[in-house]
Amino acid sequence: MKIAVFPGSFDPITRGHEALVNRALTLFDKIIVAIGVNANKNYLFSLDTRKKAISQSFGNHPKIEVDHYSCLTIDYCREMNANFILRGLRTSADFNFERSISQMNQAMNRNIETVFLMTEPELSAINSSIVRDIIRNGGNAQPFLPGKLDIKELDRLV
Amino acid sequence: MKIAVFPGSFDPITRGHEALVNRALTLFDKIIVAIGVNANKNYLFSLDTRKKAISQSFGNHPKIEVDHYSCLTIDYCREMNANFILRGLRTSADFNFERSISQMNQAMNRNIETVFLMTEPELSAINSSIVRDIIRNGGNAQPFLPGKLDIKELDRLV
Amino acid sequence: MKIAVFPGSFDPITRGHEALVNRALTLFDKIIVAIGVNANKNYLFSLDTRKKAISQSFGNHPKIEVDHYSCLTIDYCREMNANFILRGLRTSADFNFERSISQMNQAMNRNIETVFLMTEPELSAINSSIVRDIIRNGGNAQPFLPGKLDIKELDRLV
Amino acid sequence: MKIAVFPGSFDPITRGHEALVNRALTLFDKIIVAIGVNANKNYLFSLDTRKKAISQSFGNHPKIEVDHYSCLTIDYCREMNANFILRGLRTSADFNFERSISQMNQAMNRNIETVFLMTEPELSAINSSIVRDIIRNGGNAQPFLPGKLDIKELDRLV
Amino acid sequence: MKIAVFPGSFDPITRGHEALVNRALTLFDKIIVAIGVNANKNYLFSLDTRKKAISQSFGNHPKIEVDHYSCLTIDYCREMNANFILRGLRTSADFNFERSISQMNQAMNRNIETVFLMTEPELSAINSSIVRDIIRNGGNAQPFLPGKLDIKELDRLV
Amino acid sequence: MKIAVFPGSFDPITRGHEALVNRALTLFDKIIVAIGVNANKNYLFSLDTRKKAISQSFGNHPKIEVDHYSCLTIDYCREMNANFILRGLRTSADFNFERSISQMNQAMNRNIETVFLMTEPELSAINSSIVRDIIRNGGNAQPFLPGKLDIKELDRLV
Repeated sequence: MKIAVFPGSFDPITRGHEALVNRALTLFDKIIVAIGVNANKNYLFSLDTRKKAISQSFGNHPKIEVDHYSCLTIDYCREMNANFILRGLRTSADFNFERSISQMNQAMNRNIETVFLMTEPELSAINSSIVRDIIRNGGNAQPFLPGKLDIKELDRLV
Repeated sequence: MKIAVFPGSFDPITRGHEALVNRALTLFDKIIVAIGVNANKNYLFSLDTRKKAISQSFGNHPKIEVDHYSCLTIDYCREMNANFILRGLRTSADFNFERSISQMNQAMNRNIETVFLMTEPELSAINSSIVRDIIRNGGNAQPFLPGKLDIKELDRLV
Repeated sequence: MKIAVFPGSFDPITRGHEALVNRALTLFDKIIVAIGVNANKNYLFSLDTRKKAISQSFGNHPKIEVDHYSCLTIDYCREMNANFILRGLRTSADFNFERSISQMNQAMNRNIETVFLMTEPELSAINSSIVRDIIRNGGNAQPFLPGKLDIKELDRLV
Repeated sequence: MKIAVFPGSFDPITRGHEALVNRALTLFDKIIVAIGVNANKNYLFSLDTRKKAISQSFGNHPKIEVDHYSCLTIDYCREMNANFILRGLRTSADFNFERSISQMNQAMNRNIETVFLMTEPELSAINSSIVRDIIRNGGNAQPFLPGKLDIKELDRLV
Repeated sequence: MKIAVFPGSFDPITRGHEALVNRALTLFDKIIVAIGVNANKNYLFSLDTRKKAISQSFGNHPKIEVDHYSCLTIDYCREMNANFILRGLRTSADFNFERSISQMNQAMNRNIETVFLMTEPELSAINSSIVRDIIRNGGNAQPFLPGKLDIKELDRLV
Repeated sequence: MKIAVFPGSFDPITRGHEALVNRALTLFDKIIVAIGVNANKNYLFSLDTRKKAISQSFGNHPKIEVDHYSCLTIDYCREMNANFILRGLRTSADFNFERSISQMNQAMNRNIETVFLMTEPELSAINSSIVRDIIRNGGNAQPFLPGKLDIKELDRLV
């Protein structure tokens, strides 16, 4: 059974994340959308809100699970019997950072492979930190969020 | 009438910003140099000091206005009847970030176009955060500041 | 009067070129879509076919002209009384090349400014050389060509 | 059954290609290493030599096939019932080009997904055109070639 | 006498830093590994711990000194009679930042030249901030640290 | 004795090459400006013209030699007892290519180190292929050529 972890902050989940997971369903038997919790980071939405938003976006798809973890991603993968990490690539700036992380992960655990898909062109501009900026400034972020997700239901933390 | 907003932190305005606005005067009838105020960010110079520094740099040019705003840039543009956002590009790192912002702005408002000029080679190394670092460490930042701006008159905040 | 030259090979014109010119019409009074002829280069379509394809794409728009030239772009601009060169930016690879050319042009003639717009996300993958590859291999390039352009009417050279 | 096509010139196959295919075996049930034949391109090694070199490198692995094609890659995939294209990413220069190709492929055929793995750090400098340059100049290219491939057996064309 | 300063945070020193200094020994008569102290930054390891880790890594090599400074790097160089700054380059993201800093340093002091070496491929993924992340999460960072450095001896601050 | 080879096509030598060599004189005891001859490449200027142009640019500087070679660069270095290769970096596009070459050179010969300097900002746009384009089109390339080099004396080949 091919299990992939799709790690991220998902603060909040965007249309870009949603499309990537849906496309990757042809590759894997199960995809765990997993929120990495970093005690030193400030989030706009609570962990609970972010998990609900992810669940709502995928509408109980049988092959998609939602979870969170607070250890190294490769340790979490091992715990979940996942041999794959799924990541999307949008720009060459993403690329350099993602390459470093995936190569260090591989140096620590040869059995976990990071698999990349290119973000679709029309979603490649969507950047979580700009989305948060729009929300903070009262702009309309709906075009950047998953279709099934109603932004008004989200409890805003900050 | 073609009005452009040139948004930024201008903490402080540099010789790079100055040259860009001067070159863009052939394209636009009015350029508003507009300080975007972000409540979560720490600045080296106060808003008032930054506005005075911009005014001093352009010496009351009839086509240049100085202002500030604390909403989304596209909402500020609409309020000012500006159909254009002006931005400079220095490096490929700039490029990726500027592209995301301009494409998300366009997704939210099709009527506002972001126009880019390449920074001149001899100014392309000037980076506001490095300028602040020089000032904090007591170095001579004058070569990186507009010719009409006297750094000694600036009130240093931090 | 603000005149811009939009230089390129247009071998053939793509949906990306078309959208860029249409967006730039708010900035300029006239845009000359100008095919730069390079004697050392092999083209897929003849100069004549490429000019007809451009004309057909813009359907006799009163502010758009089609032309060709075989000298330096800045010399052609001066001849046409154009103070602006229009270029689109898709990727950071484009960026480095376009910056070199625009900066060398500016070193040769300070009065001609290159103005850049970012290609829209859904068109940013369109690359003329890949389009030619699709045509050469008998694929369907229509989705990458301007809506008004019928690919079957183009005389294929190679 | 998950079938992937790994397209390329393989002129010649390198240690980088070899490692990538071996790592991807956990993802796919069959990988077709397929030489794309481009009539306009000059190769250092003949098609036959390149195919033998690939076969020798993988030593008749039951899940790996070697083939060639001279149409569009997505048309070849459809013909082979392959829903995946496998590609490696070494540098941000690769990234921009690979993104364009994969996005145009997806625009032409939504059912074929391109899957990327990052080249391992110690192999990321290996570049086919530099390898050919070394061979042409009589240097020792063995460290950059698959372990099972004996460079002396290759018939050199140019 | 050719003296180079190798400036950085070294929080902590990595195998990448170690290899770079060792390779640069053929170029310089003395290399000062110098910790730049920034009052606004939070570090994982104390200044003292970082200095000890550097010393231990190079085992009292006669041409390598360890020091710290809290002024501009070029002012520190002048004080130490160093005409060279040594820096490593790993990725194109590094490149853009390093270029800005080196060019601004040169604008302030023409006599100090920044010399770059490329990080070796197998070390190019090593990124201090990812190393800190591994340490904070209890992972094994030893493969990324200098061979002579025992991570267990380091006093962890945060 | 520290000897560096500065390899290139120098078709023709530019102000960028000239400045780089002059800055590197503080690092090396001798710099050999060496034209790499590639039988498969077409040049604008003859080998002889290119060598004279380099000599004229440096005006018989005692530490600078001019030469050419037609083998691998690392083999030429060994023959000349040079332990260093000197290269300039202008853009992130340069970076990716230079990194591959320097890393493959190091894989073949650990004793030869490639040393990089950043091109000065005002020279970073100068690109040999654009310079050739200007010359071919009858433009004024003098601003991009070394001060001591008179372009009219060069015999133009193509």
